[in-house]
Amino acid sequence: MRPGSETLLPYFKPRGIAVIGASADPEKIGHGVLKNLLHPEFGFRGPIYPVNPKASEILGLPCYPSVLDVPDPLDLAVIVVPSAAAPAVMEDCGRRGVKATIILSGGFRETGPEGAERERQCVEIAARYGMRLMGPNCIGVMDMHTPVNTTFVAGITRPGKIDFVSQSGALCGGILDWAQARGINFSRFLSIGNKADVNEADLMRYLAEDEESRVLAVYVEDVKDGADFLEAARYAAARKPVLILKGGRSQSGQAATASHTGALAGAHAAFAAAAKQSGLIEFHSVESMFNAALALAHQPLLCGDRVAVLTNAGGPAVLAADALESVGLKLAAVSPETRAALRPVLAPDAALNGPVDMLGGADERQYRLALEALLEDSANDGILVILVPTVLNRPAAIVENLVAVLRERRPDKPVLLCLFGEAHVRQAYTVADLGGLPAYRFPEDAAEAFGVIHRRARRLKQDRLAPQPLAGIAPERAQQLLAEARRNGQRALDAAAGRALLEAYGIPMPQDRLATNAEEAAHFAVEIGFPVALKLASPDILHKTEVGGVLLNLTDEQAVRQGWQSIVSRARAARPAAEIRGVQVQPMVVGGQEVILGVKRDPIFGPLVMFGLGGIYVEALADVSFRLAPLSIQDAEEMIDEVRSAKLLAGLRGAPPADRRALLEAILRLSQLAVDCPEIEELDVNPLIVLPAGQGALAVDVRVVLRES
Amino acid sequence: MRPGSETLLPYFKPRGIAVIGASADPEKIGHGVLKNLLHPEFGFRGPIYPVNPKASEILGLPCYPSVLDVPDPLDLAVIVVPSAAAPAVMEDCGRRGVKATIILSGGFRETGPEGAERERQCVEIAARYGMRLMGPNCIGVMDMHTPVNTTFVAGITRPGKIDFVSQSGALCGGILDWAQARGINFSRFLSIGNKADVNEADLMRYLAEDEESRVLAVYVEDVKDGADFLEAARYAAARKPVLILKGGRSQSGQAATASHTGALAGAHAAFAAAAKQSGLIEFHSVESMFNAALALAHQPLLCGDRVAVLTNAGGPAVLAADALESVGLKLAAVSPETRAALRPVLAPDAALNGPVDMLGGADERQYRLALEALLEDSANDGILVILVPTVLNRPAAIVENLVAVLRERRPDKPVLLCLFGEAHVRQAYTVADLGGLPAYRFPEDAAEAFGVIHRRARRLKQDRLAPQPLAGIAPERAQQLLAEARRNGQRALDAAAGRALLEAYGIPMPQDRLATNAEEAAHFAVEIGFPVALKLASPDILHKTEVGGVLLNLTDEQAVRQGWQSIVSRARAARPAAEIRGVQVQPMVVGGQEVILGVKRDPIFGPLVMFGLGGIYVEALADVSFRLAPLSIQDAEEMIDEVRSAKLLAGLRGAPPADRRALLEAILRLSQLAVDCPEIEELDVNPLIVLPAGQGALAVDVRVVLRES
Repeated sequence: MRPGSETLLPYFKPRGIAVIGASADPEKIGHGVLKNLLHPEFGFRGPIYPVNPKASEILGLPCYPSVLDVPDPLDLAVIVVPSAAAPAVMEDCGRRGVKATIILSGGFRETGPEGAERERQCVEIAARYGMRLMGPNCIGVMDMHTPVNTTFVAGITRPGKIDFVSQSGALCGGILDWAQARGINFSRFLSIGNKADVNEADLMRYLAEDEESRVLAVYVEDVKDGADFLEAARYAAARKPVLILKGGRSQSGQAATASHTGALAGAHAAFAAAAKQSGLIEFHSVESMFNAALALAHQPLLCGDRVAVLTNAGGPAVLAADALESVGLKLAAVSPETRAALRPVLAPDAALNGPVDMLGGADERQYRLALEALLEDSANDGILVILVPTVLNRPAAIVENLVAVLRERRPDKPVLLCLFGEAHVRQAYTVADLGGLPAYRFPEDAAEAFGVIHRRARRLKQDRLAPQPLAGIAPERAQQLLAEARRNGQRALDAAAGRALLEAYGIPMPQDRLATNAEEAAHFAVEIGFPVALKLASPDILHKTEVGGVLLNLTDEQAVRQGWQSIVSRARAARPAAEIRGVQVQPMVVGGQEVILGVKRDPIFGPLVMFGLGGIYVEALADVSFRLAPLSIQDAEEMIDEVRSAKLLAGLRGAPPADRRALLEAILRLSQLAVDCPEIEELDVNPLIVLPAGQGALAVDVRVVLRES
Repeated sequence: MRPGSETLLPYFKPRGIAVIGASADPEKIGHGVLKNLLHPEFGFRGPIYPVNPKASEILGLPCYPSVLDVPDPLDLAVIVVPSAAAPAVMEDCGRRGVKATIILSGGFRETGPEGAERERQCVEIAARYGMRLMGPNCIGVMDMHTPVNTTFVAGITRPGKIDFVSQSGALCGGILDWAQARGINFSRFLSIGNKADVNEADLMRYLAEDEESRVLAVYVEDVKDGADFLEAARYAAARKPVLILKGGRSQSGQAATASHTGALAGAHAAFAAAAKQSGLIEFHSVESMFNAALALAHQPLLCGDRVAVLTNAGGPAVLAADALESVGLKLAAVSPETRAALRPVLAPDAALNGPVDMLGGADERQYRLALEALLEDSANDGILVILVPTVLNRPAAIVENLVAVLRERRPDKPVLLCLFGEAHVRQAYTVADLGGLPAYRFPEDAAEAFGVIHRRARRLKQDRLAPQPLAGIAPERAQQLLAEARRNGQRALDAAAGRALLEAYGIPMPQDRLATNAEEAAHFAVEIGFPVALKLASPDILHKTEVGGVLLNLTDEQAVRQGWQSIVSRARAARPAAEIRGVQVQPMVVGGQEVILGVKRDPIFGPLVMFGLGGIYVEALADVSFRLAPLSIQDAEEMIDEVRSAKLLAGLRGAPPADRRALLEAILRLSQLAVDCPEIEELDVNPLIVLPAGQGALAVDVRVVLRES
């Protein structure tokens, strides 16, 4: 177990539990908790101590006036008192030597400043006594293996192989109720509410080592400490698949989050990057997440992209093939050997090219033999079995046969089941559930789950190296430049400083010369060689193009003289107060692919690096990708490949391929710069020109905005 | 009723029904059909005639040896005999004066040439007697209002407001079973199998006028007559929402279709265009389609994009807001009046900015009052009510209250319900179902349904004009050019003919001159004015760039002379056998936006027109749109706006906006050309340069491939 994680042990394996605020009134939460702890099948087997000064006995258990009166052993206190009384109760818990507390009650931070102050007091008391605090405003913990259930939720789950951690307690009740009916069972199931102390990062680290579970699903609305989240996510995702659903991805969603828990949700780009980089699998709906969890809990990963479809109905198989392709998989062929083996067994009109369609009359024997044959067939990497109820077949008997095949063979490829229907397949669902065969209502759902177990398999195959140190960087020079700008009261670096900053991190720019008059510009242009570009030099004007401050492709001295004049006069007209230092003369860089690199500091996750192609691709198509710095080389590779227009870098229509190596290096150097210089709020390299392979990349323009001090 | 549709009436309102192949064996389909016709609640109320020469009575009904012996009234024959016997039975039906037949049996086209021949015979017999034929290889018809149920499916539905037509019978059993449990009920429900005669187009026309239903859902795998499908879809979609799910959209899916029904599925681009242009609403999963059908069946359309969320749980509301935004809607604000009205009614900590979160304690009264207030609130256009079961609330009672509000007020804005959970909300689902309040398991599903009823409302607002005749076209000139090429045995038009073809339809090209030697090229260039472009002229080389046959932006005579030489020598080297007529000299068109227009003839739906931006957008991003010719002006507008990169046409970063009018006109002219000239198999205008507004558009290059003769 990870150091630190042992402090969470009392939530899952307590030796004794006090319920402070226990109640004899069946309408009260303090009663529901006690009832769940006393559940006939999944009740807690250690001592349970109701605490209530006004009662002597509740549900047959002797009641204690205060937690201070509770005898040993006592590890965990579940607190259901009104929020105003919580700090005093926490103090008592500390004095009594309780190791872990759960405050179920609401009335804290989510209700305003007064509640926030109460919450702060509870955290402070817990810290003082070295106690952990879960919640407040949560439903508590359900551990089906210990078992222990400190929630007041009416439902229960059978012991399963999925852990679920939710920031929202309300979600838990609905999910538990739905999941039971779907055959989705849990190992540990809990909500963390306001996350005053114990948060999703703590639990990812802890549950990564829950040997009863094969998959961890997390619902989160806000992350407070980005670095800690990333560390925990990486740790957990290296040990088991971790599925994540983030509430508050949208503008509307963010508004809802703010009004819900008073927490400010970070922008989703940063969260999505964090999920990708740490190996979390992100979902956008509850149902998709648990459909995937079901497959991951019970079946091996899909190690290739070929999925065979075995069916008694053509239509659903057609939809399955469509859905498989839409998640990047394909319909597996059936090998000649398998066809030969199945031909005599199946109906004469059964189809064997494409999906194996046994037709409506298929019985349990045919399903069994066909599944056995497909498991042996090396032309597929996994099998989707579709079963539609008919007037003649017996779905539960068929599923019993499928489950028996899997039990005998323990295949190393995944099998998922689509049980199309409801009342007529209810019993079959139960058989599938007990047999560890994930069953889905619709072919599209099963196909989507196949997509996820395929992604997970691919991810595990990749070597992911830690970010490497870079040669030829001068961090102290960068610090000096930023400090200087700060001293001068600048929010943005001027052109010379921006260039120097990039050069300090080994990102080259084309040479340029500052011309303070038109004649000088013409002279520099001759020295540099035509064609040239002219750019306004002013520390006060960030967006040069907006004031007509950029002229490209000038081919003679006369054009350069006129260009100098017009840039300066346009700038003066547009911004009379701006300091204008002159015009920079640069060689035109020709024959490369324009890309944009950027950095934006996320308040939670730190510097977010952006990549996209050319100005128009970014502006018209928003075809960009994000990763959090520091980036590994794989992160940089992925962020290039994620951008659809990046195909242009390979050299379409006879254009030479761009220098991808140089682009990768520029991204990694920018990432390092962003990490080393927290002073930088935003940075654009626009454009970076990626020259043909072997010729490098040049930053043509750079804009650096500093943090507000 | 549409002329022709009356021939389908006997399927839904027969006066008497014969079941040919009726059986006393409960394991046989011929028994199942009879049992369904005799259903205690939804049995057929007219005479039912079992036909079986070997029985005298089945299920208490007297049996007839042949359909020829059946007395009047008799309209409909349901045929369940083996396929080999079907033609003889059809012949008897024709002689007996049966008006409509359904062949449930398989063993026809889907099994190979022998079955196909039997199917052809049945169609021929039906046509000879003026009978309609549904199937073969189908489940038949369920009409819950007549009622009549000729299927052998075990389940039944309550009478509802949704019609469903499925090409796949197997899908029907599963959907019916699932839909019952979800409170989705049907008016008419049928499968059409091999569609030997009655097809989805016939049924769209017929069911458009089913006054019992408010929405029609269709599952189809292949369309045989594109024009008829389009006509029927337009007719139906103008009368009620028509939802469509197409099986066989993918490559894999197409393979599956081919092996399933022996039909060749058309490419999905053409089908998707047909759906859009005719007003069908296309789905990619069964569940999404029926989720939308449920909302359309019971609630008004969503006429604005603001959806209020009313909830007893924060987490699901956050997810709802995210999902609403992802379908283009937004979380509605709550007006100050509504807040003032609700404040005293709700819990003190209830949140009213963003979703109305009444917190976990919300009871039936609070739900009722809050829904009433939000229905009055003009700050929203529709309401999503979320209800999560808790230990304290009574979901069924809450839903009863919601339903009562809707019944009393009959609001003109839609209300959808998310009932999160399963066992604890089962009774609440039933209440919602009976009350016409669509209920969904997850907030994401409800949000998606809101997206659909919003799209339908927007579509109904649009005036859609028929394609208009174009001025200045010379169809006879085009025919002449194509005939000439055909006579010369060309599969592709040469440059001059291609230019003449476009000009015959009023699509201008820049002037150009054919230079047969280098000197002539230089001379033409001077006359035209620099810069110029040079292009290889060869009827045998379609892709000029591949042989280095294009040079752009030449600025002086010397460059033109050298250019001529190098184009010709490269072409000769690459294709020694090709006829090389010389090199065309064209002025460079500067300052416009490059787009691509194209035509590809779809075997089912006819000419498919393509639009996209610039070469790289098409090649790297596949950012293109398709519509079927002939196009209306709205079709052309939509096809431009559908392309993401089309934002560039508006003039980004100071570029002047492009001449959209000229682009629209070019698209419409190309559409007309494609309609008028069925000889054209493929056509590319690449690029069409759209000049700044008011300056028109010029086709710079055109490639025309003729149909194989």
